[in-house]
Amino acid sequence: MTRFALTLEWNGVPYAGFQRQSHAPSVQQALEEAAFGVTGEDVRVHASGRTDTGVHALAMRAHFDLSRPFDPFRMAGALNAHLLKAGHAIAVLDCREVADDWHARFSCIGRAYEYRIVNRRAPLTLDVGKAWRISRPIDAQAMHDAAQVLVGHHDFTTFRSVHCQSASPVKTLDRLDVRREGERVVIEAAARSFLHHQVRSMVGCLAMVGQGQWSCADLVSALEAKDRCKLGLNAPPDGLYFVKAVYPGE
Amino acid sequence: MTRFALTLEWNGVPYAGFQRQSHAPSVQQALEEAAFGVTGEDVRVHASGRTDTGVHALAMRAHFDLSRPFDPFRMAGALNAHLLKAGHAIAVLDCREVADDWHARFSCIGRAYEYRIVNRRAPLTLDVGKAWRISRPIDAQAMHDAAQVLVGHHDFTTFRSVHCQSASPVKTLDRLDVRREGERVVIEAAARSFLHHQVRSMVGCLAMVGQGQWSCADLVSALEAKDRCKLGLNAPPDGLYFVKAVYPGE
Repeated sequence: MTRFALTLEWNGVPYAGFQRQSHAPSVQQALEEAAFGVTGEDVRVHASGRTDTGVHALAMRAHFDLSRPFDPFRMAGALNAHLLKAGHAIAVLDCREVADDWHARFSCIGRAYEYRIVNRRAPLTLDVGKAWRISRPIDAQAMHDAAQVLVGHHDFTTFRSVHCQSASPVKTLDRLDVRREGERVVIEAAARSFLHHQVRSMVGCLAMVGQGQWSCADLVSALEAKDRCKLGLNAPPDGLYFVKAVYPGE
Repeated sequence: MTRFALTLEWNGVPYAGFQRQSHAPSVQQALEEAAFGVTGEDVRVHASGRTDTGVHALAMRAHFDLSRPFDPFRMAGALNAHLLKAGHAIAVLDCREVADDWHARFSCIGRAYEYRIVNRRAPLTLDVGKAWRISRPIDAQAMHDAAQVLVGHHDFTTFRSVHCQSASPVKTLDRLDVRREGERVVIEAAARSFLHHQVRSMVGCLAMVGQGQWSCADLVSALEAKDRCKLGLNAPPDGLYFVKAVYPGE
C-alpha cells in the first residue's frame, strides 16, 4: 500500500463542500473520480477538515491510499489533468508519499482559516462569491479588540451550528486577528480544531461589533450564554478560506 | 449640463472590452443602459482607456453628461443597482460632479496597468480568467532587469497590435517593474498612454526572458527591429488590470 498526501486548492462556489453528497457535487467526489481515472482504483480521499458549501481552500491537506507505488510528481500532474478535463475548479498543488500512519484528519494538530470582507458600498465584481461585502463602514480595530475575548479555552456553543457533530463544544482558539488593508478587512483564525460554522459565526458577530451594533460586552454575553439563539449573525460562506493544516514535525 | 466622473471596477471576462460592439456585450453599453435606466437620458460614456476582451479594471475613470443636476452619491448607488439587476460584473466605486472641460480620455495624463502571473504547475482555480498561469519556473529578477530596456522614449512598433489606431508608435514608458510575491509575479507598467496590446506584448516577451528562452539582448533586438513580426509572445488578457488614470491637480 502506498499513501499519498495532497495539498489542495479549490474554488468553493460550485461545490457542496468537501464531503461527498448524494445530490450535489463535492470536492471529495471530484478527487476520487480523478484518482480512479488516473489509477483505475476506487480510493477514498480524507481531508484535514470538512468545509461547507461555497467555502474555499488555499491549502487543504488530504490523503488517499493506492495498492501499488506511483511517482507522486506524476500523480499530481495526472490528477490535475483529469480534474481540468472534467471542468473542476480544484487543483493539486503538491503530492508526496507519506507513512502509512499519517492521516490528513487525525494527524492534524492545527488548522487556520482566513475570512475576507470587502467593506464598501459598491457591489463586488471580481470578488463575487469570494468575499463578504459589508456596505456600512466597519471598525477593524474594534473588531480585533473584541476578537481577543474569544481567544482561549471556551465553550463555543453559541458559535456552533446545530448540525455540528463534535463531541464537545469546548475548544481552544489560539488566534483571532482582524486587520484592515484598504477597503478589505481580513480575519485570521487558528486553532487545533473548530466547531461546525464556528469561524463564520465568530466573524458574523465581529461584523456586528465593527458596525457598532454590538459592544464588546455584547460579545462576552453571547459567549457566556452558551446558547446558539444568542448568536448575532452567521457570516456567509463566500469569504471563508481554509488556509493551513499543521502536522507534527512540519 | 452636468458632467459626472466615475471610477469603475469590472471583471473583464464577460465583456468584449470597454468599447461598445455591435455583436458582443461591452462595459460601455452596460453603463449607458444603466444611466438610461436611472435618468431616462441617452448618455455617452467616455473612459480614460479602451480595454480588450477579458481585460479587467480596478479603477478605470470615465465620464458622461446629463442635461440636469443629480446628486452624485445617489447616482453611484442607482447605477450600481441597475448594473447588479442586469447581472453585470461592473461596479461604480465613485461618482462626482466635474467641470464641463474635464474629459476622462483627453484630460488623462497618466495610465497604469498591472499584470498578474501565477507561476506554478497546478491549474488555476480561484483565479481562472484573472491571471496568466506559467508552468515553467520564471526568474522575476531577470524579467525586471530586462524590462528596464523598454523604459523610456522608444518606437514600440514591435509591441503594437496591427489594429492599433494611435497616430504614432513612439511612446514614453515611465515604469515597468517586475516583482515576485510567492508563486505570483506582478508586473506594473506606467506611461502617459499605451499602444494597443503594448502591455500584453511587453509582458509576453518578458515571460520569455523569465523562462530563459530570450536574453536581454534578444529583447533589445526585438525593440530595435520596430517590427511586429519580431514579437516573442503576446500575453493573454486574463492577467491584465487597468489600475490607475491620473489627471492634472489630483
